[in-house]
Amino acid sequence: MKRLFLVASLLTLAMAASAQQALGPGTGIVSPEINPDNTVTFRYHNPKAKVVQVTGDFLPSRPIEVDINGQKMVYNAPGVADLQEGPGGVWTYTSAPLTGELYSYSFLVDGHREMDPSNVHQNRDVATWTNIFTLSARPGDAGWYYEVHNVPHGSVSHVWYDSPTLNSQRRMTVYTPAGYESGSQHYPVLYLLHGSGGDEDAWADLGRTAQIMDNLIAEGKAKPMIVVMPNGVWFNQAAPGAAVNNFQPTMANSRSQSTKEIEDSFPDVMSFVEKHYRVAKGYSNTAVAGLSMGGRQSCMLSLHYPDTFGYVGLFSGVGAIEGNEEGFAKVFAYEPKLYWIACGKADGVMVNARRLKEWLDFQGFKAEMYESEGGHIWRNWRVYLTMFAQRLFKQQPKAPKPVRMSSANNGDVDF
Amino acid sequence: MKRLFLVASLLTLAMAASAQQALGPGTGIVSPEINPDNTVTFRYHNPKAKVVQVTGDFLPSRPIEVDINGQKMVYNAPGVADLQEGPGGVWTYTSAPLTGELYSYSFLVDGHREMDPSNVHQNRDVATWTNIFTLSARPGDAGWYYEVHNVPHGSVSHVWYDSPTLNSQRRMTVYTPAGYESGSQHYPVLYLLHGSGGDEDAWADLGRTAQIMDNLIAEGKAKPMIVVMPNGVWFNQAAPGAAVNNFQPTMANSRSQSTKEIEDSFPDVMSFVEKHYRVAKGYSNTAVAGLSMGGRQSCMLSLHYPDTFGYVGLFSGVGAIEGNEEGFAKVFAYEPKLYWIACGKADGVMVNARRLKEWLDFQGFKAEMYESEGGHIWRNWRVYLTMFAQRLFKQQPKAPKPVRMSSANNGDVDF
Repeated sequence: MKRLFLVASLLTLAMAASAQQALGPGTGIVSPEINPDNTVTFRYHNPKAKVVQVTGDFLPSRPIEVDINGQKMVYNAPGVADLQEGPGGVWTYTSAPLTGELYSYSFLVDGHREMDPSNVHQNRDVATWTNIFTLSARPGDAGWYYEVHNVPHGSVSHVWYDSPTLNSQRRMTVYTPAGYESGSQHYPVLYLLHGSGGDEDAWADLGRTAQIMDNLIAEGKAKPMIVVMPNGVWFNQAAPGAAVNNFQPTMANSRSQSTKEIEDSFPDVMSFVEKHYRVAKGYSNTAVAGLSMGGRQSCMLSLHYPDTFGYVGLFSGVGAIEGNEEGFAKVFAYEPKLYWIACGKADGVMVNARRLKEWLDFQGFKAEMYESEGGHIWRNWRVYLTMFAQRLFKQQPKAPKPVRMSSANNGDVDF
Repeated sequence: MKRLFLVASLLTLAMAASAQQALGPGTGIVSPEINPDNTVTFRYHNPKAKVVQVTGDFLPSRPIEVDINGQKMVYNAPGVADLQEGPGGVWTYTSAPLTGELYSYSFLVDGHREMDPSNVHQNRDVATWTNIFTLSARPGDAGWYYEVHNVPHGSVSHVWYDSPTLNSQRRMTVYTPAGYESGSQHYPVLYLLHGSGGDEDAWADLGRTAQIMDNLIAEGKAKPMIVVMPNGVWFNQAAPGAAVNNFQPTMANSRSQSTKEIEDSFPDVMSFVEKHYRVAKGYSNTAVAGLSMGGRQSCMLSLHYPDTFGYVGLFSGVGAIEGNEEGFAKVFAYEPKLYWIACGKADGVMVNARRLKEWLDFQGFKAEMYESEGGHIWRNWRVYLTMFAQRLFKQQPKAPKPVRMSSANNGDVDF
């Protein structure tokens, strides 16, 4: 007993003496706490702070009117709420009841941004880490699809492939559905591309791809499929920490928004996947979709390889019409099963997205458009994936209803 | 041009207005910066701060003498250094030249712990996130093995298996060596177990297992092998964020240090692996090793299944002698190729580790002991893995020299 006490004392001492050791259950504070009524309580310990606030997309957004070169514009910034100081320097704030979503937030301590040290759940978006939590108010809401449920789980693998075209080893993330390892079935493939600031981890981490696919497949709402998420920045091999000398996040390295190299080298991705996975090949078993830059790439890939992708999803990113008129004619000559454009009404890309849709309509090319609320944000891209995945590798019924989204606003732009 | 400018302005505005959006290359500050002379410069922007310090294991440790129940003990806490404020509220500190290692650190801002917002590289240890960086002063030092080099890369997969014994789906991380996907070879397997606060992500993230194995295999110093890292806490399915309702880190959930359930259910792990991977089976192709609680589990697994593991590694954790005397006799009757005990001289486990080694010696059972500097810390466990992996699935030569470790001290205890 004495020895046990001594060890416990030493651990406590070590925690006090060392700011960086991970000896116990963190701060001893629960934050965030999801309450039974779907309010959420945030707690933060800091007796020296004068003002502690929380900002995040669970709060109503604050419209800010700005004047740029004489143009008045409204930008929706995330809301800010004050925590109240209680006994022992523990600050608290409890939100209004929230709808099911994946929310992100951080603290502002005397105006200075800080992570929540009690919350181990974080996402990295390009160069910025943010605390997250998921909340599901009822089965079938957006948050429910992003959570882990007691359903069969697919695998998520980080694999390397050779790209002779780019003369480098490159990394991709591959989701294989539950049962893949033990079965002999061949599966259709969705190639899922990230945005200009992202990397091959983005869709799996920020996009919750594995959870969305696990849940949709378990419900019978999506066909079991392989989802391939390659790194889509041609001069980067891999995500930060996984590449040679890659200590900087992708966007910090960016010298080019060029996507031609990725389009030219895409057969390297597909031939690796088709060689090493049990893939159901061919037009009606192959889909490509992406967000922002990845949407543009998906559009350009459909133009480069018009006989390859039977399903195309452009999420908040489209290719140019000009110069591609004949290309689009070839794309639609193959009669794609689904050519799906999705964009937020507050997204700067919307002008071009609508313009493409109208031009395709005018040409008599069969595309679909889904206009959501909100802007250029991950909240939308998760929903677009949830909707798009249900349409893949099937006879096309009427479009399913969108999943219920929160009315809270994540601001206008993620990247 | 005007439109471009407007977009750029909006992005700047958005970054200013929203603390949580990830629109650009982070803070615009480089921190940490590894200088050509292997000094490291830390930078932090905060015009309001009065004192900014950095604490981490790259600094000489501070011995702190403590008196517990009349016993005087010395605890080595990480050092602390002051940053100097420069123009624009940017604080800087440059370290002494460092030896190759993976270092962790955080800032203390007016005494309050903060992450480095300029460094995207973080590790989660149980419930605590810490910034990290790697530095390699010369090829072959410890830091070099933890970095990504231009060598063939293995895959890291997060897969789920059924455990009928524990009546649950459980998650494991599996490293397969470069060439696995395209070849037909069968590979030996190392089962690698984490500590009581860890989960199936710990060895891959904190332990840099994939980088260590990639580099050792590429140099011809280790045989290509599969490394299986299961979740070793019987009542947890998976790491935080990957399990149903698992919003708490492992140690926060811990109500039991029992490992019997894991030992009893280990055949579920092995039968999944042997069924779904190209495994070279049998005693001389199967190894088990673990750290802390995982070392104890490895010891107990060797006792439970004496004909199964030809190679056993106990890193900073051992099983009891008492009650297992006959068990050990059975273990060594099979003449294990390598029974390797490693422990730090400042580790509280050392007493029991030495006691086991002496008892085994006295019985005439052939085990090896490696005593390193330092305590119960990840820095040691990465080195132990680097050493142990080189010994596996080979005729046993003389023990290779330990990799060069930094003289800086990480404190005494990780967990």
